[in-house]
Amino acid sequence: MRPSGRAPDQMRTISMEAGHTRHAEGSCLISFGDTRVLCTASVETSLPPWLRGKGKGWVTAEYGMLPRATHTRGRREAAGGKQSGRTQEIQRLIGRSLRAVVDMEILGERQITLDCDVIQADGGTRTAAISGAWVALRIAVDGLLREGLIQKDPIRQKVGAVSCGIHGGTAVLDLDYDEDSTAGADGNFVLTEDGNIVEAQVTAEGECYDEEGLLRLLRLARIGCKEIFAAQDKATGR
Amino acid sequence: MRPSGRAPDQMRTISMEAGHTRHAEGSCLISFGDTRVLCTASVETSLPPWLRGKGKGWVTAEYGMLPRATHTRGRREAAGGKQSGRTQEIQRLIGRSLRAVVDMEILGERQITLDCDVIQADGGTRTAAISGAWVALRIAVDGLLREGLIQKDPIRQKVGAVSCGIHGGTAVLDLDYDEDSTAGADGNFVLTEDGNIVEAQVTAEGECYDEEGLLRLLRLARIGCKEIFAAQDKATGR
Amino acid sequence: MRPSGRAPDQMRTISMEAGHTRHAEGSCLISFGDTRVLCTASVETSLPPWLRGKGKGWVTAEYGMLPRATHTRGRREAAGGKQSGRTQEIQRLIGRSLRAVVDMEILGERQITLDCDVIQADGGTRTAAISGAWVALRIAVDGLLREGLIQKDPIRQKVGAVSCGIHGGTAVLDLDYDEDSTAGADGNFVLTEDGNIVEAQVTAEGECYDEEGLLRLLRLARIGCKEIFAAQDKATGR
Amino acid sequence: MRPSGRAPDQMRTISMEAGHTRHAEGSCLISFGDTRVLCTASVETSLPPWLRGKGKGWVTAEYGMLPRATHTRGRREAAGGKQSGRTQEIQRLIGRSLRAVVDMEILGERQITLDCDVIQADGGTRTAAISGAWVALRIAVDGLLREGLIQKDPIRQKVGAVSCGIHGGTAVLDLDYDEDSTAGADGNFVLTEDGNIVEAQVTAEGECYDEEGLLRLLRLARIGCKEIFAAQDKATGR
Amino acid sequence: MRPSGRAPDQMRTISMEAGHTRHAEGSCLISFGDTRVLCTASVETSLPPWLRGKGKGWVTAEYGMLPRATHTRGRREAAGGKQSGRTQEIQRLIGRSLRAVVDMEILGERQITLDCDVIQADGGTRTAAISGAWVALRIAVDGLLREGLIQKDPIRQKVGAVSCGIHGGTAVLDLDYDEDSTAGADGNFVLTEDGNIVEAQVTAEGECYDEEGLLRLLRLARIGCKEIFAAQDKATGR
Amino acid sequence: MRPSGRAPDQMRTISMEAGHTRHAEGSCLISFGDTRVLCTASVETSLPPWLRGKGKGWVTAEYGMLPRATHTRGRREAAGGKQSGRTQEIQRLIGRSLRAVVDMEILGERQITLDCDVIQADGGTRTAAISGAWVALRIAVDGLLREGLIQKDPIRQKVGAVSCGIHGGTAVLDLDYDEDSTAGADGNFVLTEDGNIVEAQVTAEGECYDEEGLLRLLRLARIGCKEIFAAQDKATGR
Repeated sequence: MRPSGRAPDQMRTISMEAGHTRHAEGSCLISFGDTRVLCTASVETSLPPWLRGKGKGWVTAEYGMLPRATHTRGRREAAGGKQSGRTQEIQRLIGRSLRAVVDMEILGERQITLDCDVIQADGGTRTAAISGAWVALRIAVDGLLREGLIQKDPIRQKVGAVSCGIHGGTAVLDLDYDEDSTAGADGNFVLTEDGNIVEAQVTAEGECYDEEGLLRLLRLARIGCKEIFAAQDKATGR
Repeated sequence: MRPSGRAPDQMRTISMEAGHTRHAEGSCLISFGDTRVLCTASVETSLPPWLRGKGKGWVTAEYGMLPRATHTRGRREAAGGKQSGRTQEIQRLIGRSLRAVVDMEILGERQITLDCDVIQADGGTRTAAISGAWVALRIAVDGLLREGLIQKDPIRQKVGAVSCGIHGGTAVLDLDYDEDSTAGADGNFVLTEDGNIVEAQVTAEGECYDEEGLLRLLRLARIGCKEIFAAQDKATGR
Repeated sequence: MRPSGRAPDQMRTISMEAGHTRHAEGSCLISFGDTRVLCTASVETSLPPWLRGKGKGWVTAEYGMLPRATHTRGRREAAGGKQSGRTQEIQRLIGRSLRAVVDMEILGERQITLDCDVIQADGGTRTAAISGAWVALRIAVDGLLREGLIQKDPIRQKVGAVSCGIHGGTAVLDLDYDEDSTAGADGNFVLTEDGNIVEAQVTAEGECYDEEGLLRLLRLARIGCKEIFAAQDKATGR
Repeated sequence: MRPSGRAPDQMRTISMEAGHTRHAEGSCLISFGDTRVLCTASVETSLPPWLRGKGKGWVTAEYGMLPRATHTRGRREAAGGKQSGRTQEIQRLIGRSLRAVVDMEILGERQITLDCDVIQADGGTRTAAISGAWVALRIAVDGLLREGLIQKDPIRQKVGAVSCGIHGGTAVLDLDYDEDSTAGADGNFVLTEDGNIVEAQVTAEGECYDEEGLLRLLRLARIGCKEIFAAQDKATGR
Repeated sequence: MRPSGRAPDQMRTISMEAGHTRHAEGSCLISFGDTRVLCTASVETSLPPWLRGKGKGWVTAEYGMLPRATHTRGRREAAGGKQSGRTQEIQRLIGRSLRAVVDMEILGERQITLDCDVIQADGGTRTAAISGAWVALRIAVDGLLREGLIQKDPIRQKVGAVSCGIHGGTAVLDLDYDEDSTAGADGNFVLTEDGNIVEAQVTAEGECYDEEGLLRLLRLARIGCKEIFAAQDKATGR
Repeated sequence: MRPSGRAPDQMRTISMEAGHTRHAEGSCLISFGDTRVLCTASVETSLPPWLRGKGKGWVTAEYGMLPRATHTRGRREAAGGKQSGRTQEIQRLIGRSLRAVVDMEILGERQITLDCDVIQADGGTRTAAISGAWVALRIAVDGLLREGLIQKDPIRQKVGAVSCGIHGGTAVLDLDYDEDSTAGADGNFVLTEDGNIVEAQVTAEGECYDEEGLLRLLRLARIGCKEIFAAQDKATGR
């Protein structure tokens, strides 16, 4: 029995509010239950130095958490003077996940930065961030197409992400904070619409897992991502 | 004529959503028009070293802006490794403003940190932050009273803040970004419910101002703060 | 009765030694009583990136305090690895105050940096810094005129600054450390020779103040600045 | 055909030189082909603050790369003033991997830090680091047992790690730099002696992969780790 | 012929103004010609952690240079966020030099920090700093003796320092900036009153030197230090 | 009697393994007894900004110590966020020492960086670093000559370095850690093959030394460097 009363393969309520903020070229406030992440896409024509003049673009991400997004207040990273290892690991993952579905040559010499800021945290912030960032990116790219700045769509397909884990011996989908903090193993899967895997990361927290466990988690992730893809379609009006 | 079409002494629409987030002891999402700031109050029993064992509490604030709260994306301060001078100046002002209406001895040995994070910026973020932080603080202190952790109310009165400036030769209230960036002089007033001044700061941007101008701005600020106090009452259910 | 025995509207002894150091294009060692600040003006042809190629110059300031300028030794900011919020707030104020009286187009594509380093502190370091920095700037600009590097004088008028506060219920001028640390409200006024205001900042430390109080402080500031302007004239030989 | 001429399931030559340095409680210079990592284990009785007084120990890791371990010189992280996101991600993985096989209560109130410094890099530095760090840890723990500082062995079993990836459409084991930089997908597996998984991370670099691909990589990892466990036995004289 | 017209063994004019600042327990503004360094001694009862409870004291130093002490403005170290290698090297040398003549057990559990801040630079700032810091230290220790906080004098003897170098083939004493920047070899000698050496550092800048050269420089340093010791006596009224 | 049983003028066993790593243009693993330093030379065509376009090259050095190179684990400088004063002092010395024997015009517009990383420390790491860095530099320059990138040899002669000190009243050569930590005075000499001095630094740790002491140390250094030069010849096959 899950703390939340959900079935093992049941996602929390997903909501995606596209256009949540006004200045960004794309934005989405995504919720997986009580986890709420604001994702914005900023289109800039300046590229990182190592990419300039190659006729290609770049997609990157930054991640942050408001100090009191969590149960107890955390130190503000800007005040501490650096981003934690966890923050950097997450933002690298978000960037990689989105780049996997974008054709950089079609995007052309521009950079799109996805800022994913956690307003409220209840487990699964990085997977919500990836799923919501895709919506923000989609909206920003639609703008580029509409304005004629690019001719073809550089986004090949949807990408979504969800956490899964082994909790109390059972494989469960979309862990909330209560489950996450007591799970034996927990992982994040980034999947594409066509059923392939962009990234699979499963970590044993308390006890190791076997091949069978890995596959069970992957199958749960497929169920979750189907729901995420549907929500992405709805949010972007497709 | 103001860019927004408002009368010189007209505030933008104020909204305050108390309890916007779930984990903080107090929270308020405040909007002054398109400026939106999330304020949370976190109560902690640990005090800064220089205050320990003196039977008194402390109220402090931190301020941040999401990178794409603004028209063009700004550098994430956590990634840059330090808070800008502007950020530090603002968070010092917020802390001072709230401390002016709190009795630290009644508060007792606990610290309340007000995190003010700008979700969307359109001028006046620091004054919105002060006004919203008071609501978050009020809610957090009400909780302490309700739980019997403190016996008397340490908050002496309401505090509000608003910006005023001289724009196109006219003194105007509650500048939005368009006005702010072209104002001849602009200032922030932090006022208490009983009509006194906590802080007055008026800076000549393009041309200097005289005593008469200073007084005109102060009088506009009184009008604005009256509206803010009413909104604070409504948000905290008083 | 003031701790120093001064009358409420009495400044401490002002002294300004122009040309105190040899390498800077302009320099001034200013004292307000025991407060002593060394101000130097450095003229450079390189501009901050955002100003290049616009035919305009820039005036900026940096502020520092020797670790033992104060009663007890403070941490050296260079060793701590960053400038405090207070330092940044002050140096931003100094820069703004001087820019208010300089025509950047006449100055042309050059930057003048005012370094204000507190040798000894006894209250009012930021206002002494502004007043002394003007002298250093004046001397540096006189050099540019003399060498024919600029044709017209970009300095429109004198600027001076002084602190005022409410101490023991009385409005007093030019607070020393003893008064400053026990004042109910304290403020800094930056005024121009022609009687206008560049910046007014008044903060309630212990108790709030009213409009009448604000005006009384402003009037004291006018008295103090008159004396400062005279000293600036004398120091620059006008 | 692999650039190195190896069969798809063929590891590079593994060598482990236990006791490579003299001061550390345990040390191992591990090579996977041209990749060479020096791992040292330092036993200290001071614990991180959040673990003190709980009767438990801690195992943690730090990772570094000599600036010219790589084909072209990289910036020295100490000179740059911070560890990169990649470095932090790797050292977090090494620590987690070793903690998975250590009983912290048996270890008692002491911390063992594994420093993994890459002397020469040719792909697979993080997996070599985990495999070599286990040897250094084993030696350090043997010392604690020998000196009677702990009574029971806190290490439950061996842990090893190896990279696998899809290169030119084929799943291959233990990628060297040439393969790594052109692989379509690449992953790291941390496995225990008893056949379970501590961590699985597979990232699509160029093209996504499917469930079948994931399983093929896992099976290759099992082959590689068997060889690593044998080398660990030999190096620690078991 | 030296650029300044001095004889090879001729010091610049030395001046030492004891008690230059008011708050420090000891202070001295020292000049070697146009080089001017303000040295203050701060006595504190807190010790660095590794020295606490050992019945001994500590003497340490910090060094800084005002940004425009030099011919062209240098970056403010506090703004840059760190002390340069040069700064750290110098402050370590100053600390070592003074510790060489202080008995830490007699000093007792207190730390004396010598802050040496260069007001104006014209070569030889580090040697002026050492020589002036001794005066500040002497005054601070005299205060401790006078107040009865220590019973015996912990300062064993005077210490002084001077630079020497080979300029245009000739060994010269007390190099100014012009000589320093074109010297073939240049060194700093820290000597005690009784004729011994605390520190000798001689660096070939353009061409190497031999044993004979080293000795010639040392003999010049003895001449210079004799003059410094006399000035120290005079400044401290002995 | 020395702790190691060596005669006062006896070096520890010197070994130099040229070509220890594969990617660097030159490399040398040098040992002075148990002190082991890996030196690599990296040739790059980018120059520091202040040297560009002058037809000259640059030689610089960076120094580091693996955290457990020492008896007890030291903090990793990259994790601490800065290089210590000691590290910076040493790397400046290494760079200066090598530049003393290189003709920068013959080297042409390229920079050679010597990375000296201490694998194991037992006293004398900086002098081993200088001596080994020369070998790495020699190999890198031989490569440039062989590839015809430079026509003439820019290295004028060999440079070596050794520590000497006064231990138990006796002048001794090449101090190991036990001697170093108890020496009365200790110094480092950087000498050239032709018998001249590049750098002499002698510091009194416990008691001051006299001219005679300084000369005795220099003579010991000559003995040590002779042995180092022979080892350099052997390592570079001359």
